[in-house]
Order: sequence, then C-alpha cells, then structure tokens
Amino acid sequence: MSALIVINPNSSQTVTDGIDAAVDPLRAFGVPIRCLTLAEGPPGIESQMQADLTIAPMLKLAAAQTDAAGYVIACFGDPGLHALRDQTSRPVVGIQEAAVMTALTLAQRFGVIAILPASIPRHLRAFGAMGVLDRLAGDRALGLGVTDLADPAKSRDAMIATGLRLRDEDGANVLIMGCAGMAQYRQSLVDATGLPVVEPTQAAVSMALGHIQLNLSHTQKRATHA
Amino acid sequence: MSALIVINPNSSQTVTDGIDAAVDPLRAFGVPIRCLTLAEGPPGIESQMQADLTIAPMLKLAAAQTDAAGYVIACFGDPGLHALRDQTSRPVVGIQEAAVMTALTLAQRFGVIAILPASIPRHLRAFGAMGVLDRLAGDRALGLGVTDLADPAKSRDAMIATGLRLRDEDGANVLIMGCAGMAQYRQSLVDATGLPVVEPTQAAVSMALGHIQLNLSHTQKRATHA
Amino acid sequence: MSALIVINPNSSQTVTDGIDAAVDPLRAFGVPIRCLTLAEGPPGIESQMQADLTIAPMLKLAAAQTDAAGYVIACFGDPGLHALRDQTSRPVVGIQEAAVMTALTLAQRFGVIAILPASIPRHLRAFGAMGVLDRLAGDRALGLGVTDLADPAKSRDAMIATGLRLRDEDGANVLIMGCAGMAQYRQSLVDATGLPVVEPTQAAVSMALGHIQLNLSHTQKRATHA
Amino acid sequence: MSALIVINPNSSQTVTDGIDAAVDPLRAFGVPIRCLTLAEGPPGIESQMQADLTIAPMLKLAAAQTDAAGYVIACFGDPGLHALRDQTSRPVVGIQEAAVMTALTLAQRFGVIAILPASIPRHLRAFGAMGVLDRLAGDRALGLGVTDLADPAKSRDAMIATGLRLRDEDGANVLIMGCAGMAQYRQSLVDATGLPVVEPTQAAVSMALGHIQLNLSHTQKRATHA
Amino acid sequence: MSALIVINPNSSQTVTDGIDAAVDPLRAFGVPIRCLTLAEGPPGIESQMQADLTIAPMLKLAAAQTDAAGYVIACFGDPGLHALRDQTSRPVVGIQEAAVMTALTLAQRFGVIAILPASIPRHLRAFGAMGVLDRLAGDRALGLGVTDLADPAKSRDAMIATGLRLRDEDGANVLIMGCAGMAQYRQSLVDATGLPVVEPTQAAVSMALGHIQLNLSHTQKRATHA
Amino acid sequence: MSALIVINPNSSQTVTDGIDAAVDPLRAFGVPIRCLTLAEGPPGIESQMQADLTIAPMLKLAAAQTDAAGYVIACFGDPGLHALRDQTSRPVVGIQEAAVMTALTLAQRFGVIAILPASIPRHLRAFGAMGVLDRLAGDRALGLGVTDLADPAKSRDAMIATGLRLRDEDGANVLIMGCAGMAQYRQSLVDATGLPVVEPTQAAVSMALGHIQLNLSHTQKRATHA
Repeated sequence: MSALIVINPNSSQTVTDGIDAAVDPLRAFGVPIRCLTLAEGPPGIESQMQADLTIAPMLKLAAAQTDAAGYVIACFGDPGLHALRDQTSRPVVGIQEAAVMTALTLAQRFGVIAILPASIPRHLRAFGAMGVLDRLAGDRALGLGVTDLADPAKSRDAMIATGLRLRDEDGANVLIMGCAGMAQYRQSLVDATGLPVVEPTQAAVSMALGHIQLNLSHTQKRATHA
Repeated sequence: MSALIVINPNSSQTVTDGIDAAVDPLRAFGVPIRCLTLAEGPPGIESQMQADLTIAPMLKLAAAQTDAAGYVIACFGDPGLHALRDQTSRPVVGIQEAAVMTALTLAQRFGVIAILPASIPRHLRAFGAMGVLDRLAGDRALGLGVTDLADPAKSRDAMIATGLRLRDEDGANVLIMGCAGMAQYRQSLVDATGLPVVEPTQAAVSMALGHIQLNLSHTQKRATHA
Repeated sequence: MSALIVINPNSSQTVTDGIDAAVDPLRAFGVPIRCLTLAEGPPGIESQMQADLTIAPMLKLAAAQTDAAGYVIACFGDPGLHALRDQTSRPVVGIQEAAVMTALTLAQRFGVIAILPASIPRHLRAFGAMGVLDRLAGDRALGLGVTDLADPAKSRDAMIATGLRLRDEDGANVLIMGCAGMAQYRQSLVDATGLPVVEPTQAAVSMALGHIQLNLSHTQKRATHA
Repeated sequence: MSALIVINPNSSQTVTDGIDAAVDPLRAFGVPIRCLTLAEGPPGIESQMQADLTIAPMLKLAAAQTDAAGYVIACFGDPGLHALRDQTSRPVVGIQEAAVMTALTLAQRFGVIAILPASIPRHLRAFGAMGVLDRLAGDRALGLGVTDLADPAKSRDAMIATGLRLRDEDGANVLIMGCAGMAQYRQSLVDATGLPVVEPTQAAVSMALGHIQLNLSHTQKRATHA
Repeated sequence: MSALIVINPNSSQTVTDGIDAAVDPLRAFGVPIRCLTLAEGPPGIESQMQADLTIAPMLKLAAAQTDAAGYVIACFGDPGLHALRDQTSRPVVGIQEAAVMTALTLAQRFGVIAILPASIPRHLRAFGAMGVLDRLAGDRALGLGVTDLADPAKSRDAMIATGLRLRDEDGANVLIMGCAGMAQYRQSLVDATGLPVVEPTQAAVSMALGHIQLNLSHTQKRATHA
Repeated sequence: MSALIVINPNSSQTVTDGIDAAVDPLRAFGVPIRCLTLAEGPPGIESQMQADLTIAPMLKLAAAQTDAAGYVIACFGDPGLHALRDQTSRPVVGIQEAAVMTALTLAQRFGVIAILPASIPRHLRAFGAMGVLDRLAGDRALGLGVTDLADPAKSRDAMIATGLRLRDEDGANVLIMGCAGMAQYRQSLVDATGLPVVEPTQAAVSMALGHIQLNLSHTQKRATHA
C-alpha cells in the first residue's frame, strides 16, 4: 500500500519525531504516513541559502520513495515545493501553503509566529506569491536565542507572548505556528489566546490525504512512477 | 459515533444525491458523512435573495443534528457560513471557501465555471472578502438555459467549452466547478482541459474531516453541543 | 409623493429615532424620508447570525412600502443589501458601503470605530468585498460593556479615545462611526480629533437621495413597483 | 445664499453648458449650482501636462467665488483636487473620484469609457491612488478621431460599442463615462447595455451637495472664507 | 556633450547644493550632471498646492535646457513627472518613484521618513498609483518644527529615531529618506539602524543615467529636441 | 579593480555572449563587467526544478570571484537571488526584479514576453512576491517550439506578434523581455510596437552599477570578502 511521504528537510531527527507525533491523529484516515529526515540538510534551516540547498537532496530522497502516494515538504518556507511538482505527478503539499489555506477557512486575519526575525521577509515573499497579504494580521518572531529555544518552557512562554501580541496588537483571529516541530505547544497556545491555532504539518498532511483520496494533483499527468 | 453533516440548502434531492456520490470516496477516512436536503430551500439558488433566505431554516436543520461533528454548507456562495459559526463551535466549512483554498494549493491562477452570469458578481464579492482576487484568472458562466442544463451532454459540453476558455483566454491553471451537484462532469473536464479540477463539495468535505480530526475550529469554545 | 425608506433592522425605536434626527438636515432636499423599525429584529445586532436573520422580515417590510422611491438599510454590516436589490429595482444603499465611499472622498485612509471586537472580522470581510482594504488605516472597538454603552458620557469618551488611537497609532485621516444611532457624538468626535467624521446613516441617505434624483439604480429595469 | 461652484477646467463653453444641463435635476435639492468655464484652460484636456497647467488659474477662479459653499472640479482626471483642498476648507469633490465611489455602490465591477487611449494610464494611476483597482473591469477608449467626436451620432454609437465591450469582454456591471460633457448620451448607453451608467458630473454634484448639507469636508477647519 | 538635468523645484540653493553633493559619486559614470534651482518655487514644498504650482515654471526651465540628455525632478512627490514626460521624449525620472523602485531591489518592506505629517497622505496616494502598497512597512514623520529642522544634530537624531521606529514597530527592512537634500544623514542612518538606506536623488540619478545609456524612455518618439 | 560579475546560470555560451553584448554600452560607466557561464547549468532553464538546481553551483561560482564588486543573476526567474544575498554583502541584482522595477519607471502597465507557457505561473509567483501585480497588463508566451526558437527571424516575428497582443489586447504600455539572451530583438520590438522595451540583463546591470557606486546593498555588513 502506498504511503504519504513527509520529508523534514533539516537533519534533526528530533524535529522529525515531533512531526510524526503531530500528524499521528491523521493516521486514522487509513493511509500510511512515513516521516523522513533529510540527512544532507542542516540541523535547522535559518536562511534562504540553507533552504535552497536542501532542494537537490530532497528531490533525490523523494524520488527514492517508490511507494509514494504523495508528498509533504515539512519546512515552513516550502523549499523545493514547485521543483518537486516538476518531478512528480503525485500530490505535493508544502506546510506553509497548507497552513495558510487552512487558517483562511478558520478566521479572517492570520498571525504568524516566526522563530527568527530573519524569516519574516521570506514569509512575506511567500504570502505575496500566494496572494493572501490582505488576510495577514502580522508576523512576529519569538525573539529567543538558541539556548532559550532548547528550553521547552521558555519556548512555550515565548510562543504565548508572541501569540498574544499578534492577537491584541495586530488583530489576528487565527494563529499559524511558523515552523515544523512545535506541535507540542499548540494546545497551550490555544488555551492562552483563545484563538484557533494551525500547526502546519498537521494542516499539510490533512490536505495531502484529501488530495490523494480525491485524485487531486497539480497536473493531470498520471505517469508510471512520479 | 458523530457524523459530518453536509447540508444542501436547495430542495433538490437529485443535487443532494449527486453530492453524496461525489464525497463517497472520503468515507474511507472513517467518519460518517450525512448529506441532507433543506426542504425549505428553493429548487435551485439563483440569487442572493434566495441564498439569504435559506439561512434561517438551515440554522434550524443544523441545530437539530445532535450528533454533528462538523458541518459543510453545500451551496457555492456559502450562505449562512458565518451565521452557523456563530451558532456552533463545531467546524463549519463552506464549499466555495474550501474550493478556493484547495485550488490555491494546486496551481497559480484559478478559473471558475459559474452556472449563471448573475452569480459572477456574488463570486467576486466572496473572493474579495477572502482576499484572493490576485489569484483569480477568470469567472465565466456556462451560458445555458434551464432546458439545456437538464441535458447532461449539453451541460458537460458547456463545462468543457467554458473550462477551455478559462484556460486559453484567461490563463487559468486550475478550475473550480462553481456549483454543487456537478461532480459527475469532473473527470471529463480534467480530460478535456488537462487542468486539475476542484469539485467544491469534495474539497469542503475533505477539509472538514481534517478539521474534525485535528480539533480545528473557528472558536476554541468547546460547548456541550454547539 | 414617494419617499426614501430607511429601515433600522434592529427593534430599538431609540436607535431609529437617533437615525431620524441624524438625517433630518437632508430633508431640506425635498424628498420625504421615512425611518422604520424592524419589529422582528433583535434589540441590537451583534453577530452575523443576528444580521442574517433580519433579512427575511426586512424584505417583507421593504416590499410593504408601496411608495418607496428607494431604500437605506441602516445597520453597519448592510444585511440583506444585495437581497433587497434582487427584490426591487429602486435604489438601495447600505450604510456601511455608503460610509466607506463617502470617507474615500474626504481623506486617504479611513479608521472605523466598531462597537464590539467581534464586529471587526465582519467589517474586514465587507471591506475586502468592496475592494478598499488599501485605504483602511484601522478598525478598533470601543471596548465598552453593555452598561457603559448606555451611558452617553462614557460612550462619547470611548469614541473619542478610539478615534484618537485610530488617528495617532493607525494613521487614519477620516473616521467612520461603525454603527447606526451614534450621530449625537459626531461633532464631539470632530472637535476632539480634528478629523472629518462620517456618520453612516447620513452618508447613506445623502447618496440615496442623489441616486433617486438621478435615476441611478443597480439595475435598469424600471418595473411597476419594485 | 452660497452656491456650489462647478469648474470646467477647459475653455469650452459647450462643455460647460452640457455639464449645466446634466446637473440640472439636482437643483431641486435647493442649493444654487453655478457652472464656470476656465478661460485659461485649453479647449480640451488631452494630456497630463494640459491638466496640470489648469491648476494655477483654476485655484484663482475658485478663490474668487466668495459665495462658494463647495466646489466640483469637472474634468475626469481631477486636476488640482488636492491643491484646492489645500486652499479651501469647503467641500471639494472631483468628478473622477465621485464617479468611481458612486459606481461602487451600484455594482461589483466598473468599466470606464475613455475618450482617448492616452487617458487610460492616467486613469489607472488615479484608480491605484484610490485603491479601487480590484473593482475595475476595464478601461477602453472610444477610438474616435477629432472629427468623429464632433458628430453626436458617431459619438453615441462609439460609446455604445465601447460599453458593450466593457460589459461582454471585460465583465463590467456598471459603466462610468470617463469625461465631462457627455451626459446627453447617458440614457442611450443605459438602454443599449442594460447597465447602470454613471455620468461623473452628476455623481460629483450629488455628493458635493450632500457634503455641504452635512457639513462634511476634508478638514474640520472652518475658516472665514475658504 | 549633453547632460543629465536635475531640477530642484524649490527655490533653496542650499537644497540644490546638497543634491549636487549627494549625486557627485555618479559623475564617475561619465555623463555630466547639472543641478538647477527653480527660482519660481517656494522655499520648501509642504503642500500639494505648492507642488502643483511648481509644474508650469519647471516645464519652462526644463525646455530651456537644450543640451538635456534626460531629467530628474528632485522633489519627493514627483510634481510634474508625467507633464514633463508629455513635453519631452528624453528619460524623465522622479526621485520618489526611483527611490521606491530601488528600495524594492534591496529588501522586502520599505519604510519612509517623511518630513511633515501632512506629506503622508500624498505619499500614500503616490504609492497606490505605483501599486506598491503591499511592500510598504510604514511612513512616519520626523515630528520636528521648522526651527529644529534647521539644526543638523536635531534633524539627524530625529531621522534615526524615526528610522528605528520604522524598523522595530513597522517591520521595515529598508529605509527611504522622503525628501531631497538630506543625503548628509544617510550614513548616520545606516549606522544606527543597520538597514540599507535609499537617498532618493541618488537613486533617481543612478536610474536616469542607466536609462540614458540604454536609450530607455517612456516613449519611442525621438524628436529633435524634446 | 573589482568587477561586476554577471552569471548566466545556464550552460549556453551563446546566451552568455548575447548578454555580454547587451550590456556592453554600460561599460562606459567605467566598472568592469565580467559575464560568466555556469558550466553545471542545463543548456536552458525551463522548469522551477532546473532553476533551483542551479543555485548550489552558482553560489560556488560566485564565491570564487574574489574581485566581485557585485553580482547579477542573469536568468529571468532570479534563481538563488536571496541565497546569494545570504552569502555575500555585495550588491546582488536579479534580472527579473530589475526589469520589473525599471519598467515601472517607464509606463503604467507592463507586459511580459515569456518563452514558454510553463514559465508564466513562475512569473506570477514572482510578481506576487514583488507586490506589483496591479501593474501587470499580461504575460504571454511566444508559442514557439524548440526548432523555431533557433531561427532568429521566427523568434523576432513571434516576439513582435506577442508584443502587439500585450499592447492591444492586454493594454501594456511597456514590454519586458522575459528571458536573458534576446537583446538582439529589442530594437525590432521597439520599432514594431512603439512601446519602451526593457531587456532584463541591461536593466539589472544598470541598477547593479548604481548600487555599487552608491554603496547600496541589502545589508550594511561590509565583510572582508562577501
């Protein structure tokens, strides 16, 4: 039986494990979900350069999954999303794109919690390409250093503080977690802000499973493998 | 076990049957899907007035489904979408909104096949409210009279002709069927145009099932019933 | 002689009386203006559900005014605006739409004073449908509870405080009162902020009178009654 | 009794006479309307340079009207609109701005009939500054030479042909006549296209009369003269 | 040898001298650059009226430069930009337009430092006409009175404070100095904010020199003089 | 003396030679311009996958140019633009971005001549990220097969035909050649359409030379090499 392949393009198995746990409720839909770590990726993706350099090995890893029913690229920034669509006719979903489209069905204006300030211009380019800037309330970074990010309590507190600013200063009605591997904080964020919170790997896997089931892809070509 | 409730707000059981068939592949996800006809609705919804007047009985019908895990409003125009969200804390998905958000994950510019010319301004208001007009390639009506619409071959041919104009004159890369109950023509449209085609009730049910599974709603309130 | 019909879709005669006083200067134009209260409406409209449920009785009330030269729907949110346009060929003006279009002739960016925070997403959907979000400086709620809203001094002070924030933090150059029945505070708001202030029922009645005089309607059909 | 001053910034008295006739129905509102010709203007305004050069004499002519209750600048292009607002605290309405805002209360997408192709980039700059491009269906020129424009039958026929293309090819739901002095063709255009048609001097005078009556201006300053 | 003509439309020779110094590094490109003061201009341009009234004498001054290879209009507001393009077939660049287009090649969102609060609506109209509002982070005025503006230290400090607010509160990634004649503060602003800073006369002269060299103009007409 | 480095990311020396000739007039500005071919690139870049895969070798090639004063990435699509900005503090200009920003200083609406239909969605994503879609008139492909593209007369004729459609059907006022290496057809296109035509490598080199001379970069960091 073919599977949905979720590729974490950074090399952190911890992040992949977090993704695997986050999407576990969707295994009830009956399609196997296999989460892979890109060994060639950096430990974390912090720049456009790092993101772009994951594309070549990611395409190879994707091509090697001969039982793929579809793919999710699990980095907020969707590196290689369109390249993989050039390579395969299977459904390919990026977590950034899926998170935004999901948020837009939940409330009027979305706020994004970025890990790093330097990510924000990348996000804005992507939201502009998606044509959804009129729905953006704000995009704010956690403002944590590397050490603090390794501390779950500090990360959770910073997420909540950032979510509250997005709600109260920017007018966000729904929050998007701007990173894979943070699903463990989703409920805390819901509880603290009273807003719906979209965890992007969950959103992407949910959409990808629907696309697979409905035979919805970016191309009508139905090639032998990809 | 609670069910996803799909409400067809017009009174045509034929349309409801078409919706039921269209979403059948998604029953594999394990959540019961129950498609209801709004007896108080008009035979077809052709104006904003008709759409608005379905809201009151639709809200009652929705409230009576005590086992609802979530709702889909199955009229392209999403009448009562936000009203039902005011009434219930369960996920509520409109087929127009879901079709657009799904199309935006498939290709850059979407074209819409409207049944009637008079629907187009309504669509444009909705796409403006969604903030997605930069992604719209075009919205064109079939140009069929009532008699012709009852003829499947003529409907299919008009859909294909309209889809080809959206592709060739307007630059659409993905098509949205701007009506519930037309799923039977989806594959013909894919075959003739080579473009991905979004059938809106499929898109909405797929998103709603994901929302239910992920506990994603427009509000964090988790009231006893709705 | 036919009259302009202004329908307050909530059931508060006090609000209707306030509207009647607000539009009184426009009676100098020579067209009778008749302000009606929708008995079936809620005391105040606070949700999309409440707004949508006024449409059916509003349409009946409108149809019963056999001497109507045109209509104004006097709820910020314009419930039933397009439905009434489907029912009648007479000019129909919504106070939200008219207030925005009027503000856009007065200054570059408009700020909106909302009564309740929950109204803001509704406003944003409407401004998106109108295609005017690039001109929006901000939309802020008064932040008053029900008791305080009944206190004129507190309401005025909250309006002024909100207007000053829209001017100073959001860059608004013109203010819109986001509610019918607040015209009594307009001059105080002008005096305190130094900005032009648009009271929406005044703006709508003014536009409707012009439309009537110029024979301008959404449709060229000139049916016997409506 | 003070009067609304309508300034035609070209030197054609014929155009001024056409404007005077067009706005005549609005004299029923009780405010005197005085239409002036700018002697220093060119016979017709065909370029941005010509438009800009009318501003200095127009400001002088405006200042000389000591009984002005407000002003309308009657050239589609609104030359000197903001300059006059810097000079006076009375309401100042431009016919282009008023025509657009009026059209937006009548239908979803507006089409503009331009006299000359070279006017279209100017219009688009103005619509961009107004922030209303999402509502623009199209802007098309008549395609007539000078001789043909002097022929009423040819002008009317070209207007109708252009209006039909805006409706049928561009999807316009309401038409704006992109020029002062063409009011005589309005009804023919309505009859031929079935669309509402906005004549810009009518729209502007209507809005200006409302602004005067409601004491609505771009500034709250109420200086002695202007 | 023909020269690039830079016209300062205010009558301050000090400002012209500042522009001359700012663009001096671009003389290395080999094209003579001649900076002129408009004697008929006001000492400083503070309103749209003042800006518009410079157009007539500016056009004359421009026409008198018989050796012009191209023109830069050196007032942030670009008065007469399109009028001069109507008069000449040589390249004409406005400093506002060039500053924005240059900033857009440096970072995602631009912030503008305005001299006066009243300039901001003018800027917003211009950015709307340019269609770049999605890239605008914010536009903030220095908040200095006339006396303080004459004090270099106070001007520099206010520029830095404003730049920091644009960066930290509005999310600007690049700054534009919204005035000619402030180039002396550019490096201080870069040092204090860590952001790229666009001085508009430099940006405009740079673009104009390229246009001249590449034979790029708004029109292909290559008339004898202009 | 340091040089501006222009990298053609495809492996065609013929294309590089065409770029070198196109930018030759700008050598008069005094800065050496060195055009390089990316040996690892494909013969032509036709998909997002091909574009993305050039980034890694392009970054290496760029880093090896130790005398770089700045860089131009000479593929319409700007692959690796932001990655190279992460790697170096020197000015980096993409030809797509520069062509658009240059076109926006020449006329109101730009039309793009694409080589292949499949490029258009990529262009639209880029224009959306740039926030300039309101200025886009249209983007049309040449519609030539590989054989025809090798024939200069057929290429020129197709360019002219496409340019005329962009002008006449889409309302373009300026044209952008959506490909590097086509500069030889620029004058023919100007002559046939009467519109200004932007050749993207010329536009990019012109902007890059200005950025270098003015010390304008995406970052204020002035590191030892890059």
